Amino acid sequence: MATSTFDLNRERVVAVAAELFARHGYHGTGIAELGKAVGLGRGALYHYIESKEALLYAISRTQVDRMNAHAEQALASALSPEELLHEMARGLLRNIAEHRAEWAVFFRDYSALTGERRDKVIAARERYEGYWRQALDRGVASGALRPAPPLLVKGILGMLNYTYLWFEPDGELSPEELADEYVDLLLRGIRVSS
Amino acid sequence: MATSTFDLNRERVVAVAAELFARHGYHGTGIAELGKAVGLGRGALYHYIESKEALLYAISRTQVDRMNAHAEQALASALSPEELLHEMARGLLRNIAEHRAEWAVFFRDYSALTGERRDKVIAARERYEGYWRQALDRGVASGALRPAPPLLVKGILGMLNYTYLWFEPDGELSPEELADEYVDLLLRGIRVSS
Repeated sequence: MATSTFDLNRERVVAVAAELFARHGYHGTGIAELGKAVGLGRGALYHYIESKEALLYAISRTQVDRMNAHAEQALASALSPEELLHEMARGLLRNIAEHRAEWAVFFRDYSALTGERRDKVIAARERYEGYWRQALDRGVASGALRPAPPLLVKGILGMLNYTYLWFEPDGELSPEELADEYVDLLLRGIRVSS
Repeated sequence: MATSTFDLNRERVVAVAAELFARHGYHGTGIAELGKAVGLGRGALYHYIESKEALLYAISRTQVDRMNAHAEQALASALSPEELLHEMARGLLRNIAEHRAEWAVFFRDYSALTGERRDKVIAARERYEGYWRQALDRGVASGALRPAPPLLVKGILGMLNYTYLWFEPDGELSPEELADEYVDLLLRGIRVSS
């Protein structure tokens, strides 16, 4: 799997852009600032990226595509519905913990995308929500889970996504352990008797 | 309760700033743009606000203070622990639904605050989390709830806060109904037998 110099340079530009956008906001980061941070002049920079919005798109799309690939793999496996929910939550929290800058940019600024780029990111995002619905539906079909309200998926994703704001990679819990705690809670509830 | 012209004008400036920050980002909104939107020159604008950061502070602080006041009132009432959780969730989702621009600005950009302002918003935010912990602890003390992991509060707040991104005020559910669904889910869990 040969990766070209062009690809490597582009990846570096995207990574540095993610850090800058996360720190100063997408709107608050200029192309000149980005060029300075990666050590490229305006012309060389535009060799690797089409526009600032293309960078925001690359950052957002990469993360969501990664989560879709992870969910597809989990759904294709032989996991039980409950194990499947755990695995999907683990994948998401691990990814957020490893790419906090990218996720911060995505959550804060994806709404700055326009036109086709915006549509594509929203569609990819909806596909991911659909995978969670599939996992929950499997649990209902198998008799393991009660039918839950349609907005449960957004609630679960809120619980998991919000970690981008506070999760400490050096804290007591690993992302996987936190994912397990949250999914266990959703499965069992917190009431003593039900 | 007399409200001065100064206060009314300042409120209007803060409200317009919230809309602009929500649309173009805090970093992406200039003072000149804000002046134009409220129809005030630079000098007149600075009569009402100290700085752009002071606006971000006012927007963030107002929402968090409101939620703290609501939680304090709920905690001081005679509600059972489960009713208390419902009431706190209802208050938060109602507030988010009514002030989506302000909450978007808060969640996206409060980290742009510096120094004392940043410390104060973070402290107010932590007080709010503490109220949720108190409510859960009461449930445990009364025997109604199982002791939950310390990070549950952040999970619940993620579930509720994330609605700022997607909640449709004209949708099928009112904010209060959605709050009830989420809290019921947390209380009961989604597993068939536990």
